[in-house]
Amino acid sequence: MEALTLLEEINEALEAGRLAALRALLRECNVVDIAAAMEELSDARQLRVFRILPKDISADVFAYLESDTQEQLVRAITDKELGALIDDLYLDDAVDFLEEVPANVVRRVLALTDAETRAAINRFMSYPEDSVGSVMTNEMITLHDSLTVGEAILQIRRAVPDKETVYTCYVIGGRSRKLLGALPLHRILQSSDDTKLTDIMEDDRQLFSVRTMDDREVAVELARKYDLLSVPVVDSEERLVGIVTIDDIIDVIEEEETEDWERMAALHPSDDEYVKTGVLRMARNRLGWLLILMISASFTGAILQRYEALLAALPILIASIPLLTDTGGNAGCQASTLIIRSMAVGELDVKDFFYVLWKEIRVALLCGAVLAAVNFGRMMLLGNVNLWQQYLVISCTIIFTVLTAKVIGCLLPMFSKFIKIDPALMTGPMLTTVVDIITLLIYCALASAFLLK
Amino acid sequence: MEALTLLEEINEALEAGRLAALRALLRECNVVDIAAAMEELSDARQLRVFRILPKDISADVFAYLESDTQEQLVRAITDKELGALIDDLYLDDAVDFLEEVPANVVRRVLALTDAETRAAINRFMSYPEDSVGSVMTNEMITLHDSLTVGEAILQIRRAVPDKETVYTCYVIGGRSRKLLGALPLHRILQSSDDTKLTDIMEDDRQLFSVRTMDDREVAVELARKYDLLSVPVVDSEERLVGIVTIDDIIDVIEEEETEDWERMAALHPSDDEYVKTGVLRMARNRLGWLLILMISASFTGAILQRYEALLAALPILIASIPLLTDTGGNAGCQASTLIIRSMAVGELDVKDFFYVLWKEIRVALLCGAVLAAVNFGRMMLLGNVNLWQQYLVISCTIIFTVLTAKVIGCLLPMFSKFIKIDPALMTGPMLTTVVDIITLLIYCALASAFLLK
Repeated sequence: MEALTLLEEINEALEAGRLAALRALLRECNVVDIAAAMEELSDARQLRVFRILPKDISADVFAYLESDTQEQLVRAITDKELGALIDDLYLDDAVDFLEEVPANVVRRVLALTDAETRAAINRFMSYPEDSVGSVMTNEMITLHDSLTVGEAILQIRRAVPDKETVYTCYVIGGRSRKLLGALPLHRILQSSDDTKLTDIMEDDRQLFSVRTMDDREVAVELARKYDLLSVPVVDSEERLVGIVTIDDIIDVIEEEETEDWERMAALHPSDDEYVKTGVLRMARNRLGWLLILMISASFTGAILQRYEALLAALPILIASIPLLTDTGGNAGCQASTLIIRSMAVGELDVKDFFYVLWKEIRVALLCGAVLAAVNFGRMMLLGNVNLWQQYLVISCTIIFTVLTAKVIGCLLPMFSKFIKIDPALMTGPMLTTVVDIITLLIYCALASAFLLK
Repeated sequence: MEALTLLEEINEALEAGRLAALRALLRECNVVDIAAAMEELSDARQLRVFRILPKDISADVFAYLESDTQEQLVRAITDKELGALIDDLYLDDAVDFLEEVPANVVRRVLALTDAETRAAINRFMSYPEDSVGSVMTNEMITLHDSLTVGEAILQIRRAVPDKETVYTCYVIGGRSRKLLGALPLHRILQSSDDTKLTDIMEDDRQLFSVRTMDDREVAVELARKYDLLSVPVVDSEERLVGIVTIDDIIDVIEEEETEDWERMAALHPSDDEYVKTGVLRMARNRLGWLLILMISASFTGAILQRYEALLAALPILIASIPLLTDTGGNAGCQASTLIIRSMAVGELDVKDFFYVLWKEIRVALLCGAVLAAVNFGRMMLLGNVNLWQQYLVISCTIIFTVLTAKVIGCLLPMFSKFIKIDPALMTGPMLTTVVDIITLLIYCALASAFLLK
């Protein structure tokens, strides 16, 4: 709504040639809204608006644009404009942008930056995709351990970056730049001018840090558990090299959640948005698992084929196959989802396996008994009372099905976690197939034993 | 690991009676770790440790305890201790605690607080569970619109709350206390002492606020979209009454995600942790949907029963039922998960329906064709070549199944969103059943038409 109105205002101003008014309007707006409106403009107008943007917000707006819009703009602007843009971008935003564009654009950008920035960009771009290094920034406030609060406030007011990265300052020591402690800005402000920073900083047991090569989820876990606004990143010699800020942490949480959803749904995880993924690519992302699962489902078919004679003789058994497999799939999915989720938020761990197993068995017996009773009642009411033996076999199979499903639904994710595979990856797609096979084996075995004379 | 070591240290210190040393140790520790360690102590030791805690962190530790531990402690301490504790707790933590304990504890707590706090607690506790009011806090920095930067810094340093709630200050005007603008602390620090706050604050198009009775997801959306550290809450007369801070926003994101997971998995959403939910309660949470889905699956059975003669005559058709229903379930789940997720993070909206539908149809035809070809090839290779007509019917059904599944997989969540029902609630459980029914209808119809002479 907001963005639409802004878009109209921008288009009107451009058409009327009221550029000064447009510039004043843009200065009043939030950079996120400006970026959203720019996405909707024609290419030529995008470039015009970008050039009109007040200089102090143009890099911020650029950082919020989609990567293909960024690439287009960069191709259209002059070397001088590009140099100024890269200087104004925060290092993490510049790296994010460069990771998405073709190599020739990267070369042009790097050629326009000074040696120091180029070195930093190259270093940041070399970190693996899911590492802490790939999401950190080097814009942060470091304070020397010899300072007092009064001196620190003066230094912060002189050199504060234009971002929330200021809200936790880090105290470093001597020439080694070793990380000594963290100091929330509010604590600095609270303290009297002559307090020594080392007296109020959080050190030892309260100082948390991650390494550049750690998985980025390590940083997320720390920030989540201790409500941190930023997590300091150190190198192998404990020197402070960067921080991961809360906004990037929220983005990582969202990306990891999306990955989990995709894995549970038997999709090949993809970073691209729905609207940006072509039909061919989308089909490829989905086909892998669909093929694997279709082939595995043919094992289920093989079981049914083995009991062909039994099923042909007692067709009521056929009609109940979907009821049994669906109930098994649903029951298993309930257990596995609860357990995967509880492990993801840290409530459950592999060591709780036997506790979980015992709980799931009891829940399964309760649920199974109720479902079986309801099903038996329904069949007797609506069906042929003389077929009670067949109804009984079907209802008993329900109990076994629910039990199997719940047990596998806790076994599969916890075993995946134990062998360090993402539980969502292994459990989501495989669960139904495994439960189906076991359910049908039990079903046919029970039916053969009790119904065939 | 950390918590375990701390736990051992605490136990050792208690046994040796080294209370002063324990107090010094606890002062060095993070409150989250202390709370985690306390959870593992015996009741009597919990109380002893709580009384040893340095006064300035005891309320923080209390806020991180589980609610049953909180209740136990509150029952054990004296009225004087309880009064001091409630005074030290942040209002939002006090409200969180009171919402979980029995009414007699609430009465005792309220009797011990002063009239002003009591009024605030009562007001905060009266907000509905999912409203902004239920997650906001009233600890924030408000600055009068007549101040300069220098005066503001002095005021902040005098009255700063011991929390991250300071990092965005809010500018209010005149006696009405109307919210005029937001002012990130770093911008105050950056500016010269004689700048007027009204000249640097974010107002009009850059100021975002929510109402106390808004759904708390509105605040989450704002914070996410604009990378805010806190969202101001106003009443119906635009007066500032509180803020929602980033740590609570992350908690809400996690809770809402868990709810979506549970709904997709046909579970009754529950706020309780896995380990805290009893077997009976857990069975009840799961039985509702299992029963509904079992009953719906009996419709699938009815279809198979109608075609009993056909199936008994051509048993190869029976063996392929799980393959078809599973493939349909998987293909539908892929589409619906992608779409639900894309709608949740704001990439897709109901208005994109036809775009999505057309895309899914093309993806479905591609996937369906490949799956059908692979299946036909497999059956011809491993089966009886003379049955090619039956194999062809099965393979063609795969194409229809995938198409149906993908179409329903985008129809169901987008329609739910359109009629304002949570897409995860309606899509997760129902999808498989609906796809099953349509798949089997197509299957049996095709088989009757082409295979029965």
